Amino acid sequence: MSSPSRYLVSAPGKVILFGEHAVVYGKTAIAGSLDGLRTYVFFEKRDDGFLELNLPKLGLQHPLLWPISALPYSKVTTVSKENNSLQESTINEELLKSLKEIVLDGNAGNKNNQEINELQQVAASVFLYLYASLEDKQTSWCGTTVHIASNLPVGAGLGSSAAYSVCLATGLLLVLGHITIPNYGEKVGGFNISDSSSPMNLINRWAFQAEKIIHGTPSGIDNAVATYGGAVSFSKGVMENVIEFQSLRFLLTNTKVPRNTRTLVANVRKLHDKCPHIVVPILEAIEGISSKFKEIINSGDSQKELNQNIEELIDFNHYLLNSLRVGHPSIDKVREIAAQYSLHSKLTGAGGGGCVLTLLRDDVPNDDIMKIMLNLTSIGFECFETKVGGHGISILDASTISKQEFLSSENIQQFSGWKHFN
Amino acid sequence: MSSPSRYLVSAPGKVILFGEHAVVYGKTAIAGSLDGLRTYVFFEKRDDGFLELNLPKLGLQHPLLWPISALPYSKVTTVSKENNSLQESTINEELLKSLKEIVLDGNAGNKNNQEINELQQVAASVFLYLYASLEDKQTSWCGTTVHIASNLPVGAGLGSSAAYSVCLATGLLLVLGHITIPNYGEKVGGFNISDSSSPMNLINRWAFQAEKIIHGTPSGIDNAVATYGGAVSFSKGVMENVIEFQSLRFLLTNTKVPRNTRTLVANVRKLHDKCPHIVVPILEAIEGISSKFKEIINSGDSQKELNQNIEELIDFNHYLLNSLRVGHPSIDKVREIAAQYSLHSKLTGAGGGGCVLTLLRDDVPNDDIMKIMLNLTSIGFECFETKVGGHGISILDASTISKQEFLSSENIQQFSGWKHFN
Repeated sequence: MSSPSRYLVSAPGKVILFGEHAVVYGKTAIAGSLDGLRTYVFFEKRDDGFLELNLPKLGLQHPLLWPISALPYSKVTTVSKENNSLQESTINEELLKSLKEIVLDGNAGNKNNQEINELQQVAASVFLYLYASLEDKQTSWCGTTVHIASNLPVGAGLGSSAAYSVCLATGLLLVLGHITIPNYGEKVGGFNISDSSSPMNLINRWAFQAEKIIHGTPSGIDNAVATYGGAVSFSKGVMENVIEFQSLRFLLTNTKVPRNTRTLVANVRKLHDKCPHIVVPILEAIEGISSKFKEIINSGDSQKELNQNIEELIDFNHYLLNSLRVGHPSIDKVREIAAQYSLHSKLTGAGGGGCVLTLLRDDVPNDDIMKIMLNLTSIGFECFETKVGGHGISILDASTISKQEFLSSENIQQFSGWKHFN
Repeated sequence: MSSPSRYLVSAPGKVILFGEHAVVYGKTAIAGSLDGLRTYVFFEKRDDGFLELNLPKLGLQHPLLWPISALPYSKVTTVSKENNSLQESTINEELLKSLKEIVLDGNAGNKNNQEINELQQVAASVFLYLYASLEDKQTSWCGTTVHIASNLPVGAGLGSSAAYSVCLATGLLLVLGHITIPNYGEKVGGFNISDSSSPMNLINRWAFQAEKIIHGTPSGIDNAVATYGGAVSFSKGVMENVIEFQSLRFLLTNTKVPRNTRTLVANVRKLHDKCPHIVVPILEAIEGISSKFKEIINSGDSQKELNQNIEELIDFNHYLLNSLRVGHPSIDKVREIAAQYSLHSKLTGAGGGGCVLTLLRDDVPNDDIMKIMLNLTSIGFECFETKVGGHGISILDASTISKQEFLSSENIQQFSGWKHFN
């Protein structure tokens, strides 16, 4: 059976429900996948020996195009090809450096002499790094065209880079013949990350490599959520599925207030070092929130009790994040508007602006949700009604979908035939 | 030498700087005396065998008057007369019950058939309890008239009952010949509460008895601050002077939002019992704030650094009190207005409204302070510019001051001859 000539791969964004910042100090964070806020990547077979990458979402108006023969194969080592213990493996910096140069080189791929900023350069280098590391002569594909689409805001702390990384890893592993689309109901690896034989884990580990290229020292939580979906508890490098996690409905508000994650994290560190006897117990209290969340989500409480208890934890975490000085007036504004309808909110991610989560209890009338969203958008915020804890990777044999259909579709999720694995 | 025929006694209110609520769980609280917010009590000799108590501040328009002979002396036991180990001693409930009845009895003291509410009844009973317990035939005073004046708001968490208790204990110990006015510079006991021979400690212990009658199970912190002045660190029943404490300038804002301390304390308890793994570390973090305060106050830092560090602690404690759900929009409003002038605020006391402290750094222009006060009073709040950490008990031989002069004085503090002991 020949492999499909087109694949569509999709992966979700993530939000941190509880434990941001504390996770840096080895405390437990809980993150979940974002339903409906996903990145979609279209992979199409070529026969001309070229790689084409389209990144309109990152502001690149023209495709980037490289002859496969231009890749520096001599620098691909067993380290960069190794995928069994990728969690620990390091990036082949020499290979990466060469690839970054190729991205900028007008003679290789940057045919239109577009200005390429750092973010675009890194995104393209990740693609080439994965391609060069994974290339396998077993495939019938002699070249690939890749198109990226996404409704995930970039740089808003919603894991857009991980969704991109997971899609690239999945698509390239498929295209280059390392995995096939798992069958529905087939054991695809679930959450046992140490089981290196499962395709899901292979994808997750290569996506983690991509994340390392993008972020330096990522926690691995974003790519895990984008891969496996659902909700994940993460502490000191150990991730586990939050087993009984039911989808929770949230309003996600992007305040669009720009913030610098690195600076926010560094400021918490300063506060921690200056006042350890205050900050260490605060981090311990945040650990208590994550533990309590895992306890109540498995408690069999009624939906009403569960929601009330989660709202209590949301408030605790909001105040404690404020005590770490990562709050912002824009976050308080969202809280204030949601509170007018008895809804509870907290920042998600680094804080200092960015995104805010508001739990939408089942008893909240749709009218109220509409009013809150109107109110929030009228002051310049962007809102998404979403569920946390849905599908991870989804794959579609897209042989019957043309590139034009993909590019012009307003709802890629609606194509029939998507395969989900959780 | 005959004793004076009139005494004027004064004691300050208190504010909690750090550690409210946490102190209930054995954590350290820091409290300080309020400069200029004091209760004044005028004691005048009578020869007719009557006790007269004037409590206009509590809404009693007419004096209460009792013949000393009406006091139930048979019920005064060694327990109620004992003053060496008062810290542990219990109230003579039988004596107290009789006295409460006498207060309400029109034939004994309530000559004008005034309606007497519970607060007034307790205040009068405290007076009679101390008198009956302390009476000593060694005195030349055969009756006393007592007038209370105060610029301390009642029921605002500023220790008005302790200031009242300390004044009564001091005045009655003087009037009944147990102590004399200590000489300036005389060792009056300082803060060594276990030194039972010092007049200050004797006063503090009797004031604590009065506080027990008023509050049931007071911590003892309010009467200690009213007695000794300065700042006090208090934890698990052990109090110590904050040695190097220099007066700090604050704006004290009474939001006048009524709150029920008992309910607020009970709600924190519920939260604590429901989520111990969150609340216990929060209380630990508050302990860290009090420790840090004692550390920096003794660090020899410049005034500027000291103020910056205290502001940091104020913010920490504000956010952590919010995490215990004892905040209130009125408190946030004060914080917001003060923040417009880069000043930092926190609630003081039980929260849920009540009073707010704003640190006034030395570099704040008086104009700014005026603007903040105008802004706060325009929305119905009451402001006091005050120092924390001033005098405790002050005593004046008031032989040359008439009752009329006392009652008509707008600034009792300005009488000359006050003796302070810290």
